[in-house]
Amino acid sequence: MSDLLTASQLEERLREVGATRYHHLHPFQLRLQSGACSRGEVEAWALNRYLYQACIPQKDAIILSRMEDAQLRREWRQRIIDHDGEREGEGGIAKWLKLTDDLGLDRGAVMSGELALPATKFAVNAYMTFVRDRSLLEAVASSLTELFSPMVIATRVSGMLANYDYVTQETLAYFTARPVQAKRDSDFALDYCKTHARTPEQQRAVIAALEFKCSMLWAMLDALEHAYLYAKPWPDAFRPADQADRQAAE
Amino acid sequence: MSDLLTASQLEERLREVGATRYHHLHPFQLRLQSGACSRGEVEAWALNRYLYQACIPQKDAIILSRMEDAQLRREWRQRIIDHDGEREGEGGIAKWLKLTDDLGLDRGAVMSGELALPATKFAVNAYMTFVRDRSLLEAVASSLTELFSPMVIATRVSGMLANYDYVTQETLAYFTARPVQAKRDSDFALDYCKTHARTPEQQRAVIAALEFKCSMLWAMLDALEHAYLYAKPWPDAFRPADQADRQAAE
Repeated sequence: MSDLLTASQLEERLREVGATRYHHLHPFQLRLQSGACSRGEVEAWALNRYLYQACIPQKDAIILSRMEDAQLRREWRQRIIDHDGEREGEGGIAKWLKLTDDLGLDRGAVMSGELALPATKFAVNAYMTFVRDRSLLEAVASSLTELFSPMVIATRVSGMLANYDYVTQETLAYFTARPVQAKRDSDFALDYCKTHARTPEQQRAVIAALEFKCSMLWAMLDALEHAYLYAKPWPDAFRPADQADRQAAE
Repeated sequence: MSDLLTASQLEERLREVGATRYHHLHPFQLRLQSGACSRGEVEAWALNRYLYQACIPQKDAIILSRMEDAQLRREWRQRIIDHDGEREGEGGIAKWLKLTDDLGLDRGAVMSGELALPATKFAVNAYMTFVRDRSLLEAVASSLTELFSPMVIATRVSGMLANYDYVTQETLAYFTARPVQAKRDSDFALDYCKTHARTPEQQRAVIAALEFKCSMLWAMLDALEHAYLYAKPWPDAFRPADQADRQAAE
Protein backbone atom coordinates (compact mmCIF):
# COMPACT_ATOMS: atom_id res chain seq x y z
CA MET A 1 0.00 0.00 0.00
CA SER A 2 1.63 3.17 -1.13
CA ASP A 3 -0.35 5.37 1.28
CA LEU A 4 1.04 3.67 4.40
CA LEU A 5 2.94 6.31 6.32
CA THR A 6 6.15 5.67 8.21
CA ALA A 7 5.90 6.18 11.97
CA SER A 8 7.59 9.54 11.72
CA GLN A 9 5.35 10.62 8.82
CA LEU A 10 2.33 9.69 10.94
CA GLU A 11 3.70 11.76 13.81
CA GLU A 12 4.20 14.66 11.43
CA ARG A 13 0.58 14.41 10.24
CA LEU A 14 -0.63 14.34 13.84
CA ARG A 15 1.41 17.41 14.69
CA GLU A 16 -0.09 19.15 11.66
CA VAL A 17 -3.56 18.47 13.07
CA GLY A 18 -2.49 20.27 16.25
CA ALA A 19 -0.91 23.15 14.38
CA THR A 20 -4.12 23.80 12.41
CA ARG A 21 -6.96 22.64 14.68
CA TYR A 22 -5.95 22.80 18.36
CA HIS A 23 -7.74 25.39 20.47
CA HIS A 24 -4.62 27.52 21.00
CA LEU A 25 -5.87 29.21 17.80
CA HIS A 26 -9.41 29.85 19.05
CA PRO A 27 -10.43 33.53 19.37
CA PHE A 28 -11.88 32.93 22.83
CA GLN A 29 -8.61 31.37 23.97
CA LEU A 30 -6.70 34.39 22.64
CA ARG A 31 -9.19 36.67 24.36
CA LEU A 32 -8.80 34.79 27.64
CA GLN A 33 -5.03 35.00 27.72
CA SER A 34 -4.83 38.59 26.47
CA GLY A 35 -6.89 39.94 29.35
CA ALA A 36 -9.85 40.93 27.16
CA CYS A 37 -12.30 38.64 28.96
CA SER A 38 -14.70 40.12 31.46
CA ARG A 39 -14.76 38.54 34.91
CA GLY A 40 -18.01 36.87 33.94
CA GLU A 41 -16.47 35.34 30.82
CA VAL A 42 -13.58 33.92 32.86
CA GLU A 43 -16.13 32.48 35.28
CA ALA A 44 -18.18 30.98 32.44
CA TRP A 45 -15.04 29.46 30.96
CA ALA A 46 -13.96 27.88 34.26
CA LEU A 47 -17.48 26.63 35.05
CA ASN A 48 -18.02 25.06 31.63
CA ARG A 49 -14.56 23.60 31.37
CA TYR A 50 -15.08 21.94 34.75
CA LEU A 51 -17.39 19.45 33.00
CA TYR A 52 -14.55 18.48 30.69
CA GLN A 53 -12.07 18.14 33.57
CA ALA A 54 -14.56 16.07 35.56
CA CYS A 55 -15.18 13.64 32.71
CA ILE A 56 -11.51 12.77 32.22
CA PRO A 57 -11.17 9.98 34.82
CA GLN A 58 -14.47 8.47 33.64
CA LYS A 59 -13.28 8.69 30.04
CA ASP A 60 -9.99 7.05 31.04
CA ALA A 61 -11.85 4.36 32.96
CA ILE A 62 -13.79 3.50 29.80
CA ILE A 63 -10.49 3.21 27.92
CA LEU A 64 -8.99 1.16 30.76
CA SER A 65 -11.98 -1.17 30.65
CA ARG A 66 -11.23 -1.89 27.00
CA MET A 67 -7.53 -2.73 27.45
CA GLU A 68 -6.80 -6.43 27.60
CA ASP A 69 -3.14 -6.05 28.49
CA ALA A 70 -2.21 -5.52 32.16
CA GLN A 71 0.99 -3.64 31.29
CA LEU A 72 -1.03 -1.21 29.22
CA ARG A 73 -3.58 -0.81 32.01
CA ARG A 74 -0.80 -0.11 34.55
CA GLU A 75 0.38 2.74 32.33
CA TRP A 76 -3.07 4.15 31.66
CA ARG A 77 -4.41 4.03 35.23
CA GLN A 78 -1.97 6.75 36.29
CA ARG A 79 -4.13 9.24 34.40
CA ILE A 80 -7.06 8.43 36.66
CA ILE A 81 -4.88 8.83 39.76
CA ASP A 82 -3.61 12.19 38.51
CA HIS A 83 -7.09 13.55 38.08
CA ASP A 84 -8.75 12.04 41.15
CA GLY A 85 -5.76 12.31 43.52
CA GLU A 86 -4.86 10.04 46.42
CA ARG A 87 -7.39 11.61 48.74
CA GLU A 88 -10.13 14.24 48.94
CA GLY A 89 -8.81 17.65 47.87
CA GLU A 90 -5.98 16.30 45.72
CA GLY A 91 -5.69 15.69 42.00
CA GLY A 92 -6.59 17.62 38.87
CA ILE A 93 -10.32 17.93 39.45
CA ALA A 94 -9.78 19.32 42.97
CA LYS A 95 -7.31 21.81 41.54
CA TRP A 96 -9.87 22.90 38.98
CA LEU A 97 -12.37 23.43 41.78
CA LYS A 98 -9.76 25.62 43.49
CA LEU A 99 -9.94 27.79 40.38
CA THR A 100 -13.74 27.97 40.37
CA ASP A 101 -13.70 28.58 44.17
CA ASP A 102 -11.30 31.49 43.76
CA LEU A 103 -13.56 32.94 41.08
CA GLY A 104 -16.34 32.94 43.66
CA LEU A 105 -18.44 30.27 41.99
CA ASP A 106 -20.57 28.01 44.15
CA ARG A 107 -18.91 24.62 44.27
CA GLY A 108 -22.18 22.70 44.36
CA ALA A 109 -23.45 24.55 41.32
CA VAL A 110 -20.21 23.96 39.43
CA MET A 111 -20.12 20.26 40.28
CA SER A 112 -23.78 19.69 39.38
CA GLY A 113 -23.11 20.88 35.84
CA GLU A 114 -26.56 22.47 35.86
CA LEU A 115 -25.29 25.87 34.79
CA ALA A 116 -23.08 24.63 31.98
CA LEU A 117 -24.09 25.39 28.40
CA PRO A 118 -25.94 22.56 26.63
CA ALA A 119 -23.26 22.55 23.93
CA THR A 120 -20.59 21.93 26.58
CA LYS A 121 -22.50 18.93 27.84
CA PHE A 122 -22.98 17.62 24.30
CA ALA A 123 -19.26 17.98 23.52
CA VAL A 124 -18.23 16.15 26.69
CA ASN A 125 -20.82 13.48 26.01
CA ALA A 126 -19.48 13.07 22.47
CA TYR A 127 -16.02 12.44 23.90
CA MET A 128 -17.32 9.75 26.26
CA THR A 129 -19.28 8.12 23.43
CA PHE A 130 -16.26 8.24 21.17
CA VAL A 131 -13.96 6.34 23.54
CA ARG A 132 -16.67 3.79 24.21
CA ASP A 133 -17.80 3.14 20.63
CA ARG A 134 -14.63 3.47 18.53
CA SER A 135 -11.64 1.16 18.42
CA LEU A 136 -9.18 1.19 21.33
CA LEU A 137 -6.60 2.65 18.97
CA GLU A 138 -8.90 5.59 18.17
CA ALA A 139 -9.75 6.05 21.85
CA VAL A 140 -6.03 6.27 22.70
CA ALA A 141 -5.44 8.61 19.76
CA SER A 142 -8.15 10.98 20.96
CA SER A 143 -5.96 11.72 24.01
CA LEU A 144 -3.19 13.08 21.81
CA THR A 145 -4.28 16.70 22.20
CA GLU A 146 -1.97 16.56 25.20
CA LEU A 147 0.88 16.72 22.71
CA PHE A 148 -0.17 20.30 22.08
CA SER A 149 -1.05 21.49 25.57
CA PRO A 150 2.42 23.04 26.03
CA MET A 151 1.37 25.38 23.19
CA VAL A 152 -1.39 26.76 25.34
CA ILE A 153 -0.73 26.23 29.05
CA ALA A 154 2.29 28.52 29.56
CA THR A 155 0.70 31.34 27.53
CA ARG A 156 -2.63 30.95 29.26
CA VAL A 157 -1.11 30.99 32.75
CA SER A 158 1.20 33.96 32.16
CA GLY A 159 -1.54 35.85 30.31
CA MET A 160 -4.14 35.27 33.00
CA LEU A 161 -1.71 36.17 35.81
CA ALA A 162 -0.69 39.37 34.06
CA ASN A 163 -4.18 40.48 33.15
CA TYR A 164 -6.64 39.47 35.84
CA ASP A 165 -5.87 40.74 39.34
CA TYR A 166 -8.23 38.17 40.87
CA VAL A 167 -6.17 35.29 39.46
CA THR A 168 -3.09 34.11 41.40
CA GLN A 169 -0.51 31.38 40.89
CA GLU A 170 -2.46 29.28 43.45
CA THR A 171 -5.70 29.80 41.52
CA LEU A 172 -4.03 28.24 38.50
CA ALA A 173 -2.36 25.38 40.39
CA TYR A 174 -4.03 22.92 38.00
CA PHE A 175 -1.79 24.07 35.20
CA THR A 176 1.42 23.80 37.24
CA ALA A 177 1.12 20.02 37.49
CA ARG A 178 -0.15 19.35 33.98
CA PRO A 179 2.83 19.85 31.65
CA VAL A 180 4.91 17.04 33.20
CA GLN A 181 1.92 14.67 33.29
CA ALA A 182 0.85 15.63 29.78
CA LYS A 183 4.34 15.05 28.41
CA ARG A 184 4.55 11.60 29.99
CA ASP A 185 1.03 10.66 28.87
CA SER A 186 1.31 11.96 25.34
CA ASP A 187 4.74 10.37 24.80
CA PHE A 188 3.18 7.05 25.73
CA ALA A 189 0.02 7.49 23.64
CA LEU A 190 1.94 8.73 20.61
CA ASP A 191 4.26 5.76 20.79
CA TYR A 192 1.24 3.45 21.11
CA CYS A 193 -0.41 4.96 18.03
CA LYS A 194 2.78 4.86 15.96
CA THR A 195 3.24 1.20 16.85
CA HIS A 196 -0.37 0.03 16.51
CA ALA A 197 -1.58 1.96 13.46
CA ARG A 198 -0.24 -0.54 10.96
CA THR A 199 -2.54 -0.03 7.96
CA PRO A 200 -3.45 3.13 6.01
CA GLU A 201 -6.99 2.77 7.33
CA GLN A 202 -5.79 2.62 10.94
CA GLN A 203 -3.51 5.58 10.37
CA ARG A 204 -6.37 7.60 8.89
CA ALA A 205 -8.53 6.62 11.87
CA VAL A 206 -5.84 7.83 14.29
CA ILE A 207 -5.59 11.17 12.49
CA ALA A 208 -9.40 11.50 12.39
CA ALA A 209 -9.61 10.70 16.12
CA LEU A 210 -7.28 13.57 16.88
CA GLU A 211 -9.26 15.87 14.57
CA PHE A 212 -12.43 14.84 16.38
CA LYS A 213 -10.87 15.66 19.75
CA CYS A 214 -9.65 19.04 18.53
CA SER A 215 -13.15 19.79 17.18
CA MET A 216 -14.62 18.92 20.57
CA LEU A 217 -12.31 21.33 22.43
CA TRP A 218 -12.97 23.96 19.74
CA ALA A 219 -16.74 23.54 19.99
CA MET A 220 -16.60 24.19 23.75
CA LEU A 221 -14.93 27.55 23.13
CA ASP A 222 -17.31 28.33 20.24
CA ALA A 223 -20.23 27.79 22.61
CA LEU A 224 -18.70 30.12 25.23
CA GLU A 225 -17.93 32.77 22.65
CA HIS A 226 -21.42 32.56 21.20
CA ALA A 227 -23.30 32.59 24.49
CA TYR A 228 -21.25 35.21 26.34
CA LEU A 229 -20.04 37.47 23.56
CA TYR A 230 -22.33 37.36 20.53
CA ALA A 231 -25.69 36.05 21.66
CA LYS A 232 -27.27 34.97 24.92
CA PRO A 233 -26.75 31.90 27.07
CA TRP A 234 -29.42 29.20 27.18
CA PRO A 235 -31.98 30.31 29.80
CA ASP A 236 -30.91 27.69 32.34
CA ALA A 237 -27.18 28.33 31.91
CA PHE A 238 -24.79 30.47 33.96
CA ARG A 239 -25.42 34.17 33.64
CA PRO A 240 -22.56 36.25 35.01
CA ALA A 241 -23.33 39.19 37.27
CA ASP A 242 -21.52 41.59 34.93
CA GLN A 243 -23.48 40.33 31.93
CA ALA A 244 -26.74 40.77 33.80
CA ASP A 245 -25.61 44.38 34.41
CA ARG A 246 -24.72 44.83 30.75
CA GLN A 247 -28.10 43.54 29.62
CA ALA A 248 -29.94 45.71 32.12
CA ALA A 249 -28.08 48.73 30.71
CA GLU A 250 -29.04 47.93 27.10
CA MET B 1 -46.87 14.54 47.93
CA SER B 2 -48.00 18.10 47.48
CA ASP B 3 -45.79 18.70 44.46
CA LEU B 4 -47.47 16.01 42.36
CA LEU B 5 -49.07 17.75 39.40
CA THR B 6 -52.39 16.78 37.89
CA ALA B 7 -52.20 15.53 34.30
CA SER B 8 -53.42 18.87 33.00
CA GLN B 9 -50.95 20.79 35.18
CA LEU B 10 -48.17 18.62 33.79
CA GLU B 11 -49.34 19.39 30.26
CA GLU B 12 -49.37 23.08 31.10
CA ARG B 13 -45.77 22.90 32.38
CA LEU B 14 -44.71 21.07 29.22
CA ARG B 15 -46.35 23.70 27.03
CA GLU B 16 -44.53 26.38 29.04
CA VAL B 17 -41.23 24.69 28.17
CA GLY B 18 -42.17 25.03 24.51
CA ALA B 19 -43.27 28.64 24.87
CA THR B 20 -39.94 29.63 26.44
CA ARG B 21 -37.36 27.22 24.99
CA TYR B 22 -38.47 25.89 21.61
CA HIS B 23 -36.43 27.02 18.62
CA HIS B 24 -39.24 29.07 17.11
CA LEU B 25 -37.67 31.83 19.27
CA HIS B 26 -34.11 31.36 17.98
CA PRO B 27 -32.62 34.34 16.10
CA PHE B 28 -31.37 32.09 13.30
CA GLN B 29 -34.86 30.64 12.87
CA LEU B 30 -36.30 34.17 12.67
CA ARG B 31 -33.58 35.10 10.19
CA LEU B 32 -34.33 32.02 8.07
CA GLN B 33 -38.04 32.68 7.80
CA SER B 34 -37.72 36.44 7.31
CA GLY B 35 -35.57 36.08 4.22
CA ALA B 36 -32.45 37.55 5.82
CA CYS B 37 -30.38 34.39 5.32
CA SER B 38 -27.89 34.28 2.49
CA ARG B 39 -28.17 31.35 0.09
CA GLY B 40 -25.12 29.84 1.80
CA GLU B 41 -26.77 30.08 5.23
CA VAL B 42 -29.88 28.31 3.93
CA GLU B 43 -27.63 25.62 2.47
CA ALA B 44 -25.71 25.27 5.75
CA TRP B 45 -28.98 25.00 7.66
CA ALA B 46 -30.35 22.28 5.36
CA LEU B 47 -27.07 20.36 5.31
CA ASN B 48 -26.64 20.40 9.09
CA ARG B 49 -30.24 19.68 9.87
CA TYR B 50 -30.05 16.65 7.58
CA LEU B 51 -28.06 14.89 10.32
CA TYR B 52 -30.91 15.45 12.74
CA GLN B 53 -33.50 14.20 10.24
CA ALA B 54 -31.38 11.16 9.43
CA CYS B 55 -31.00 10.17 13.09
CA ILE B 56 -34.74 10.12 13.80
CA PRO B 57 -35.53 6.54 12.68
CA GLN B 58 -32.44 5.28 14.52
CA LYS B 59 -33.46 7.21 17.60
CA ASP B 60 -36.97 5.76 17.33
CA ALA B 61 -35.55 2.27 16.84
CA ILE B 62 -33.64 2.64 20.12
CA ILE B 63 -36.89 3.66 21.84
CA LEU B 64 -38.74 0.80 20.14
CA SER B 65 -36.09 -1.63 21.37
CA ARG B 66 -36.81 -0.57 24.93
CA MET B 67 -40.60 -1.03 24.78
CA GLU B 68 -41.82 -4.28 26.26
CA ASP B 69 -45.42 -3.83 25.17
CA ALA B 70 -46.40 -4.86 21.63
CA GLN B 71 -49.29 -2.38 21.46
CA LEU B 72 -46.90 0.43 22.34
CA ARG B 73 -44.40 -0.78 19.73
CA ARG B 74 -47.13 -0.92 17.06
CA GLU B 75 -47.88 2.75 17.76
CA TRP B 76 -44.25 3.84 17.84
CA ARG B 77 -43.03 1.98 14.73
CA GLN B 78 -45.14 4.25 12.50
CA ARG B 79 -42.59 7.00 13.18
CA ILE B 80 -39.87 4.89 11.58
CA ILE B 81 -42.07 4.18 8.57
CA ASP B 82 -42.86 7.88 8.16
CA HIS B 83 -39.21 8.81 8.06
CA ASP B 84 -37.86 5.90 6.04
CA GLY B 85 -40.87 5.49 3.70
CA GLU B 86 -42.15 2.33 2.06
CA ARG B 87 -39.50 2.36 -0.64
CA GLU B 88 -36.46 4.25 -1.89
CA GLY B 89 -37.27 7.90 -2.48
CA GLU B 90 -40.19 8.04 -0.04
CA GLY B 91 -40.43 9.18 3.55
CA GLY B 92 -39.17 12.15 5.54
CA ILE B 93 -35.46 11.65 4.98
CA ALA B 94 -35.92 11.39 1.21
CA LYS B 95 -38.00 14.59 1.32
CA TRP B 96 -35.23 16.33 3.22
CA LEU B 97 -32.78 15.22 0.53
CA LYS B 98 -35.12 16.77 -2.05
CA LEU B 99 -34.54 20.05 -0.21
CA THR B 100 -30.75 19.68 -0.17
CA ASP B 101 -30.83 18.56 -3.85
CA ASP B 102 -32.82 21.64 -4.83
CA LEU B 103 -30.31 23.79 -3.00
CA GLY B 104 -27.63 22.29 -5.23
CA LEU B 105 -25.86 20.38 -2.49
CA ASP B 106 -24.12 17.15 -3.36
CA ARG B 107 -26.22 14.31 -2.03
CA GLY B 108 -23.25 12.12 -1.15
CA ALA B 109 -21.63 14.93 0.79
CA VAL B 110 -24.86 15.68 2.64
CA MET B 111 -25.48 12.04 3.53
CA SER B 112 -21.90 11.44 4.68
CA GLY B 113 -22.28 14.13 7.33
CA GLU B 114 -18.66 15.06 6.71
CA LEU B 115 -19.43 18.73 6.11
CA ALA B 116 -21.68 19.17 9.14
CA LEU B 117 -20.47 21.30 12.02
CA PRO B 118 -18.95 19.33 14.92
CA ALA B 119 -21.53 20.88 17.27
CA THR B 120 -24.34 19.51 15.08
CA LYS B 121 -22.89 16.03 15.34
CA PHE B 122 -22.49 16.36 19.11
CA ALA B 123 -26.08 17.53 19.53
CA VAL B 124 -27.45 14.65 17.47
CA ASN B 125 -25.22 12.23 19.34
CA ALA B 126 -26.49 13.61 22.65
CA TYR B 127 -30.05 12.89 21.53
CA MET B 128 -29.18 9.29 20.64
CA THR B 129 -27.38 8.82 23.96
CA PHE B 130 -30.30 10.32 25.86
CA VAL B 131 -32.89 7.91 24.49
CA ARG B 132 -30.56 4.98 25.10
CA ASP B 133 -29.42 5.83 28.64
CA ARG B 134 -32.45 7.48 30.26
CA SER B 135 -35.73 5.88 31.29
CA LEU B 136 -38.25 4.95 28.60
CA LEU B 137 -40.54 7.65 29.98
CA GLU B 138 -37.83 10.29 29.48
CA ALA B 139 -37.05 8.95 26.01
CA VAL B 140 -40.72 9.28 25.03
CA ALA B 141 -40.91 12.74 26.62
CA SER B 142 -37.95 13.94 24.57
CA SER B 143 -40.10 13.55 21.44
CA LEU B 144 -42.61 16.10 22.73
CA THR B 145 -41.05 18.99 20.82
CA GLU B 146 -43.46 17.86 18.09
CA LEU B 147 -46.17 19.48 20.18
CA PHE B 148 -44.64 22.79 19.19
CA SER B 149 -43.72 22.18 15.56
CA PRO B 150 -46.96 23.83 14.36
CA MET B 151 -45.52 27.03 15.90
CA VAL B 152 -42.65 26.93 13.45
CA ILE B 153 -43.51 24.90 10.35
CA ALA B 154 -46.20 27.11 8.78
CA THR B 155 -44.21 30.30 9.40
CA ARG B 156 -41.01 28.73 8.13
CA VAL B 157 -42.62 27.44 4.94
CA SER B 158 -44.48 30.64 4.10
CA GLY B 159 -41.46 32.76 5.00
CA MET B 160 -39.07 30.70 2.93
CA LEU B 161 -41.44 30.59 -0.06
CA ALA B 162 -41.97 34.34 0.06
CA ASN B 163 -38.33 35.24 0.48
CA TYR B 164 -36.11 32.84 -1.41
CA ASP B 165 -36.82 32.52 -5.13
CA TYR B 166 -34.86 29.25 -5.29
CA VAL B 167 -37.25 27.61 -2.82
CA THR B 168 -40.52 26.11 -4.13
CA GLN B 169 -43.41 24.25 -2.56
CA GLU B 170 -41.84 21.01 -3.85
CA THR B 171 -38.50 21.88 -2.25
CA LEU B 172 -40.27 22.06 1.09
CA ALA B 173 -42.36 18.92 0.62
CA TYR B 174 -40.97 17.57 3.90
CA PHE B 175 -42.95 20.13 5.84
CA THR B 176 -46.23 19.42 4.03
CA ALA B 177 -46.43 15.92 5.46
CA ARG B 178 -45.17 16.70 8.96
CA PRO B 179 -47.99 18.58 10.72
CA VAL B 180 -50.46 15.67 10.50
CA GLN B 181 -47.81 13.14 11.56
CA ALA B 182 -46.53 15.39 14.32
CA LYS B 183 -50.01 15.95 15.70
CA ARG B 184 -50.74 12.21 15.81
CA ASP B 185 -47.34 11.40 17.32
CA SER B 186 -47.33 14.16 19.90
CA ASP B 187 -50.92 13.45 20.99
CA PHE B 188 -49.86 9.88 21.67
CA ALA B 189 -46.60 10.77 23.45
CA LEU B 190 -48.23 13.47 25.55
CA ASP B 191 -50.93 11.06 26.64
CA TYR B 192 -48.26 8.47 27.47
CA CYS B 193 -46.33 10.94 29.62
CA LYS B 194 -49.43 12.20 31.42
CA THR B 195 -50.40 8.62 32.21
CA HIS B 196 -46.97 7.24 33.15
CA ALA B 197 -45.42 10.14 35.07
CA ARG B 198 -46.98 9.20 38.37
CA THR B 199 -44.54 10.68 40.91
CA PRO B 200 -43.17 14.21 41.28
CA GLU B 201 -39.75 12.83 40.37
CA GLN B 202 -41.07 11.27 37.17
CA GLN B 203 -42.93 14.45 36.30
CA ARG B 204 -39.76 16.51 36.83
CA ALA B 205 -37.85 14.03 34.65
CA VAL B 206 -40.44 14.40 31.87
CA ILE B 207 -40.17 18.20 31.98
CA ALA B 208 -36.36 18.02 32.06
CA ALA B 209 -36.38 15.63 29.08
CA LEU B 210 -38.33 18.17 27.05
CA GLU B 211 -35.98 20.96 28.18
CA PHE B 212 -33.04 18.82 27.10
CA LYS B 213 -34.59 18.26 23.67
CA CYS B 214 -35.30 21.97 23.24
CA SER B 215 -31.70 22.76 24.22
CA MET B 216 -30.47 20.29 21.62
CA LEU B 217 -32.49 21.92 18.81
CA TRP B 218 -31.40 25.35 20.07
CA ALA B 219 -27.73 24.35 20.16
CA MET B 220 -27.90 23.28 16.51
CA LEU B 221 -29.09 26.77 15.51
CA ASP B 222 -26.53 28.42 17.84
CA ALA B 223 -23.80 26.51 16.04
CA LEU B 224 -25.07 27.61 12.61
CA GLU B 225 -25.41 31.22 13.73
CA HIS B 226 -21.93 31.19 15.23
CA ALA B 227 -20.16 29.53 12.32
CA TYR B 228 -21.90 31.30 9.44
CA LEU B 229 -22.70 34.70 10.91
CA TYR B 230 -20.37 35.63 13.73
CA ALA B 231 -17.25 33.50 13.40
CA LYS B 232 -15.95 30.89 11.01
CA PRO B 233 -16.94 27.29 10.41
CA TRP B 234 -14.66 24.49 11.61
CA PRO B 235 -12.04 23.98 8.83
CA ASP B 236 -13.52 20.67 7.69
CA ALA B 237 -17.12 21.93 7.68
CA PHE B 238 -19.27 23.23 4.83
CA ARG B 239 -18.16 26.58 3.47
CA PRO B 240 -20.77 28.21 1.26
CA ALA B 241 -19.66 29.70 -2.05
CA ASP B 242 -21.04 33.12 -1.07
CA GLN B 243 -19.17 33.06 2.23
CA ALA B 244 -15.94 32.15 0.45
CA ASP B 245 -16.56 35.21 -1.75
CA ARG B 246 -17.23 37.37 1.28
CA GLN B 247 -14.05 36.25 2.98
CA ALA B 248 -12.00 36.78 -0.16
CA ALA B 249 -13.35 40.34 -0.32
CA GLU B 250 -12.37 41.15 3.28
